[in-house]
Amino acid sequence: MKLKVVSWERKRFRSPSLERPVANFFTMRTVTWEDGKVKMIDQTALPLKLSHVFFTKPEEVANAIRTMVVRGAPAIGVAAAMGLALSAHRSKAAKLPELLHDMESSAGLLRSTRPTAVNLFWGIDRVMNKVREAKTVREAKELVEAEVKAMEEEDVQTNRRLGKIGAELIDDGDTVLTQCNAGALATVGYGTALGVIRAAVEQGKLVKVLVPETRPALQGARLTAFELAQDGIDCTLISDTAVGHMISIGRVDKVVVGADRITNDGYVFNKIGTYQEAVLASRHGVPFFPAAPHSTFDLSRGHDSVTIEERSADEVVKISGKRIAPKGVPVANPAFDMTPPELVTGIISDRGLLQPPLAESIQRLIS
Amino acid sequence: MKLKVVSWERKRFRSPSLERPVANFFTMRTVTWEDGKVKMIDQTALPLKLSHVFFTKPEEVANAIRTMVVRGAPAIGVAAAMGLALSAHRSKAAKLPELLHDMESSAGLLRSTRPTAVNLFWGIDRVMNKVREAKTVREAKELVEAEVKAMEEEDVQTNRRLGKIGAELIDDGDTVLTQCNAGALATVGYGTALGVIRAAVEQGKLVKVLVPETRPALQGARLTAFELAQDGIDCTLISDTAVGHMISIGRVDKVVVGADRITNDGYVFNKIGTYQEAVLASRHGVPFFPAAPHSTFDLSRGHDSVTIEERSADEVVKISGKRIAPKGVPVANPAFDMTPPELVTGIISDRGLLQPPLAESIQRLIS
Repeated sequence: MKLKVVSWERKRFRSPSLERPVANFFTMRTVTWEDGKVKMIDQTALPLKLSHVFFTKPEEVANAIRTMVVRGAPAIGVAAAMGLALSAHRSKAAKLPELLHDMESSAGLLRSTRPTAVNLFWGIDRVMNKVREAKTVREAKELVEAEVKAMEEEDVQTNRRLGKIGAELIDDGDTVLTQCNAGALATVGYGTALGVIRAAVEQGKLVKVLVPETRPALQGARLTAFELAQDGIDCTLISDTAVGHMISIGRVDKVVVGADRITNDGYVFNKIGTYQEAVLASRHGVPFFPAAPHSTFDLSRGHDSVTIEERSADEVVKISGKRIAPKGVPVANPAFDMTPPELVTGIISDRGLLQPPLAESIQRLIS
Repeated sequence: MKLKVVSWERKRFRSPSLERPVANFFTMRTVTWEDGKVKMIDQTALPLKLSHVFFTKPEEVANAIRTMVVRGAPAIGVAAAMGLALSAHRSKAAKLPELLHDMESSAGLLRSTRPTAVNLFWGIDRVMNKVREAKTVREAKELVEAEVKAMEEEDVQTNRRLGKIGAELIDDGDTVLTQCNAGALATVGYGTALGVIRAAVEQGKLVKVLVPETRPALQGARLTAFELAQDGIDCTLISDTAVGHMISIGRVDKVVVGADRITNDGYVFNKIGTYQEAVLASRHGVPFFPAAPHSTFDLSRGHDSVTIEERSADEVVKISGKRIAPKGVPVANPAFDMTPPELVTGIISDRGLLQPPLAESIQRLIS
């Protein structure tokens, strides 16, 4: 893994909320295929340092996914696909079955990194299905590389489509509550929930964003606030404890969040803390919209069989390496939660707005 | 201010949840009157260091309240009273009106430290009412000192009474969700919400406590987890984002929290994040009990005129002195929120369990 620090001081101190933003958004790609290497923004270093890392081995990409150098369901879908492409690219296989064997082995490793976001499995399956069309090793390698490049481009186009559809739901002057980071940094670019906000701003609407810091990994404070400040979009950071209060005093007009997996019965799995936002929004009559590309829908299962990842206690008891709790205290650290369809006003997808009953809309629009 | 580090290594690594606790609880006093000085545990240093600070001037006590060296509604009520006693103790006044003038001036300073917890004003008023009974300067100083010593003792006795009343609501095997720290460290000793848990444990019940870290000031992670670990009471720390998920999967049997002010119409003001716990508990049929001594009830007003303190943005954007968000990002940091009576199953007080309709119970039991 090589590390390259990007100079960004010029943009760094751009103050949010001082100007009406124009359509000049965060254009860096979170993950990209570059000359047989995978290039990523190192999200663990944000917001203090914007740097890129380069990977040449699938194991490095697997590790980057596990340690959240790259995170966000759509981004890890593309990253995993590119990890698999590295496997093909590096393979010394002389014959197709050997190449497939190498790739299957890497696919297994990549699949084991994180259990909840379905895009991870979608990305891997898509590359594996493509490579099976090849007749020769050379053709296979070309097909795989072309496929991951296409996935990278499609991701941004998908989010722009999704953003435009979602922006219709946002009114001029709205304050939108989000959760975690479902922005450019959670995708190749543009973002899902934040893509909706960017598209609304591109339509000339004034939008304010309320950003919960999203403990334990602080993606709201570290990533969403960073992205929005870079783009000059008005945002206010709050503790996760303040979500209910802010909704109850009328400071939230809409909730727009991302998703890691949406099952065929309309249940939305997303970053821990999403469920309580949905419950509070519902209590106060605030519309609640998950935003997700078609690759986030899991048509193969209902909500009962989804695994919610439990992550390390260290994420909770240490912040920036400093201990904030007594040694040895037991910790529960579920990384995701589940929002039932009755709390969902609609799901914003690149194929249209899915309205209740969600199970039926999912069948109609996504299948 | 003098600082004294207490040796506590012997107790420090006592592991939680390994043994059934006996009635051998955290006996240190959070705030105490000692030979004309106010002695406090420095709560900003916990859980990494258990140390005491000594104050001789009312301004030092005011600063300690403002900076949360001491926090928790009952504790700051007693601390403010003792700050006022320092004013009397140090006064060079030869005549009673001069002494009263000195004390009124200190009272004004102490009243300005934090706006939400009503115990602060209760503690100050109680001392000012007492001093007005005196006929001489000497008698005044004696009355004041006796009064704050009595308040210190009463606080612990009040919490023990409250704890016993609340413990009746806790079943053997219950998991109790709390918020912030309403423990020994939020009072002179024993605690309110954690007093209920201690009393239940004293009754021989096995109780587990689910502790949200309670951002921004992390009183759950720093103080509640520390207290419970010291006492060997089984606790599990979670991020504030995990509250809804844990309730929804059936991991919570009761919610017991403290309170900073309860108005005559039954609204409960408490640490930010309490309201969302109440909403989630209600949705899932989990009983929700604030626990508070009679000094936390504000009979003079309804909920409309209570000020919710807005604290520094630094509490949100820096943790242990390290920045976790981009520079310049706007922050909202309300320190408290309001839970309406319809979400409250009952209020545990030292004068009995207040049941709905709360406005009537408050009139009957507290007035």
